[in-house]
Amino acid sequence: MVRRAAIVGAGQTRFGALDAGPRELLRTAVAQAFASVDRGADRASVDSAFLATLGFGGWQIGNSAAVLAEESGVAGVPTTRVENACASGGFALRAAVDAVGSGSAELVLVAGVEKMTDIPNARRRYWLGVSGDTEWERLAGLTFAGVYGLIASRYLAEHHLGPEALTAVAVKNHENGALNPNAHFRKVVKAEEVAAAPRVADPLGLYDCCPVSDGAAALLVAPAEHARRFTDAPVYVEGVGAASDYLAVQERADLTRFAASRRAADQAFRSGALERSAVSFLEVHDCFTIGELLALEDLGFAPPGEAARMTLAGETRRDARLPVNPDGGLKAKGHPIGATGVGQAYEAFCQLRGSAGARQVPGAERALAHNVGGAGATATVTIFGVG
Amino acid sequence: MVRRAAIVGAGQTRFGALDAGPRELLRTAVAQAFASVDRGADRASVDSAFLATLGFGGWQIGNSAAVLAEESGVAGVPTTRVENACASGGFALRAAVDAVGSGSAELVLVAGVEKMTDIPNARRRYWLGVSGDTEWERLAGLTFAGVYGLIASRYLAEHHLGPEALTAVAVKNHENGALNPNAHFRKVVKAEEVAAAPRVADPLGLYDCCPVSDGAAALLVAPAEHARRFTDAPVYVEGVGAASDYLAVQERADLTRFAASRRAADQAFRSGALERSAVSFLEVHDCFTIGELLALEDLGFAPPGEAARMTLAGETRRDARLPVNPDGGLKAKGHPIGATGVGQAYEAFCQLRGSAGARQVPGAERALAHNVGGAGATATVTIFGVG
Repeated sequence: MVRRAAIVGAGQTRFGALDAGPRELLRTAVAQAFASVDRGADRASVDSAFLATLGFGGWQIGNSAAVLAEESGVAGVPTTRVENACASGGFALRAAVDAVGSGSAELVLVAGVEKMTDIPNARRRYWLGVSGDTEWERLAGLTFAGVYGLIASRYLAEHHLGPEALTAVAVKNHENGALNPNAHFRKVVKAEEVAAAPRVADPLGLYDCCPVSDGAAALLVAPAEHARRFTDAPVYVEGVGAASDYLAVQERADLTRFAASRRAADQAFRSGALERSAVSFLEVHDCFTIGELLALEDLGFAPPGEAARMTLAGETRRDARLPVNPDGGLKAKGHPIGATGVGQAYEAFCQLRGSAGARQVPGAERALAHNVGGAGATATVTIFGVG
Repeated sequence: MVRRAAIVGAGQTRFGALDAGPRELLRTAVAQAFASVDRGADRASVDSAFLATLGFGGWQIGNSAAVLAEESGVAGVPTTRVENACASGGFALRAAVDAVGSGSAELVLVAGVEKMTDIPNARRRYWLGVSGDTEWERLAGLTFAGVYGLIASRYLAEHHLGPEALTAVAVKNHENGALNPNAHFRKVVKAEEVAAAPRVADPLGLYDCCPVSDGAAALLVAPAEHARRFTDAPVYVEGVGAASDYLAVQERADLTRFAASRRAADQAFRSGALERSAVSFLEVHDCFTIGELLALEDLGFAPPGEAARMTLAGETRRDARLPVNPDGGLKAKGHPIGATGVGQAYEAFCQLRGSAGARQVPGAERALAHNVGGAGATATVTIFGVG
């Protein structure tokens, strides 16, 4: 990387079933991002923008890049929509880091947004469903919950486990979400409730699945070398990695490992010349509880099967050795598709500046964010630090 | 720009109503791009990819970035879908130039694809329509042809012109398309036929409108400093510019000037430290014939109203002073949305290497490509040269 990047401002709406439409959500998150900058960043200083969204306004409003520019008050600025299913946010941030790195931009706005409620179920199921393989999965009736259910079954069988570790992920992430004023679910759940909930795709029950959320998040990204023009507390992008995999899970060598996550993590650590041990906490893509276990292993923080043990031992709790999803994760904070990856970076920004309030990870110095599109078809890993 | 970029390989399918589906179109264009490289570029050397598409497979197949990686034989490589309506291709190339510029990639695959025929009309109209403003235009019944018809009416009225210049654009671009084996329309048309054709949105008739085309195009982009590892005849990206504007035309100051095109052109010339006079020929976004006249003026090659005179005087013909759309343009070559901007770069690649066959612009040394999304809502301008 020729020039490194830093996040100098960040904002995020609540995630949840909200009254606001996608334009208002965008405006709110972008306004917060500008308000969070200490000095020197007004709309006129933005020279590039990237928007992450899957189905902006339920696919009733297109050309969403132009809409972002307009709603953010930066009409005129070159704006690009990035769409990589649920990893749109991570890929949009990566594009912004490249824009800063190449010298083509000096202050980049990255925003992610999704309005998922108030849209007919059939339409929403369709525009989520097409992000999985169509020929061998979707048209055969396999949903995302179904794919992750298959993966979870296989994981538990391979490692001779019962569903307790999945349950522990849900309990922990709800516990964290309860401390997060922006979370979709601010409600603690008991293990017995999780276990007794209706099954969605066995072994995954209702509490193993992330909700359908509205929300937006926004970042302001500048060259690291100029970051202190904008703030006394920049958050540096220390490593970036991304990868893809076959879309249909049947094409892959292994059902319980996401090769895209593994490659993205290796690239991110290599690009930042960093060790796993340097990371204070993780934000991982737990669209289903099994996703968090896979992530811990694929990202190199646990050998196969060990993520379950670590989770059951409480090692991934907010105040433990390796906090995972201190904001509640997709599970409890919510999963407004395009906003999810941007929201993970927002959490890193808050935590690393020590402004995460009740959910603060003590002494957080370096964060890793992991965003997945499809059931492992694409992934980004971004490492943030305070220099 | 820290590191400049070069195109070291390019491929393109025919544009037209084709039998092939989007996967096959992608495969064909990508295979041609690899085949066009003299040496040293195999699938294993690609380390980043960008896909431009609006409605890949009629919105029945999502996560199209992952599909690109798979169909191109580069599964594993980080792949990003860029969607900026009809400017998707230009913005995808711009992202690739940033990836090379930042040092995050050494060989980037850029592909654009659209399958537009064999899709129900209502669905296609809807997924094209949402790229215009929804609240004030689409839901009021205003189509893209309608918007461009309004603009054309205003242009002709402002400059006290009849429709002859619009007709001349159509005649010229059909003449060029007739020489292009990849063109959707390989048919010369007479001015009388254009004038007598059914009206679509007065003053625009059938021959003033680009067709609905299938097609794909692909590029291989490398750092300029390493381009000769791959080919003896690299085509350098000498300038890149992009911009946005309000999506709804009612929000804009002027109906007959696209501010996004003007800003993108100024940025491209500034970034390349180039003069307009250095450009040998233009590839401009003539989705409707009026688009070519606006482009000539917005890009700084003619003062307001002068584009009509230049066109009527034959100055934009293939063998004249400033050839415009030697490949036939969107008008005759076709307009497979995501492939269009990538296909413009393919034409620059062929022309600047002297391999454009019957449609070769004599002595072409520098090309400008201009890609527009929505009726001027976003635009890219890219300048190519042979160093």
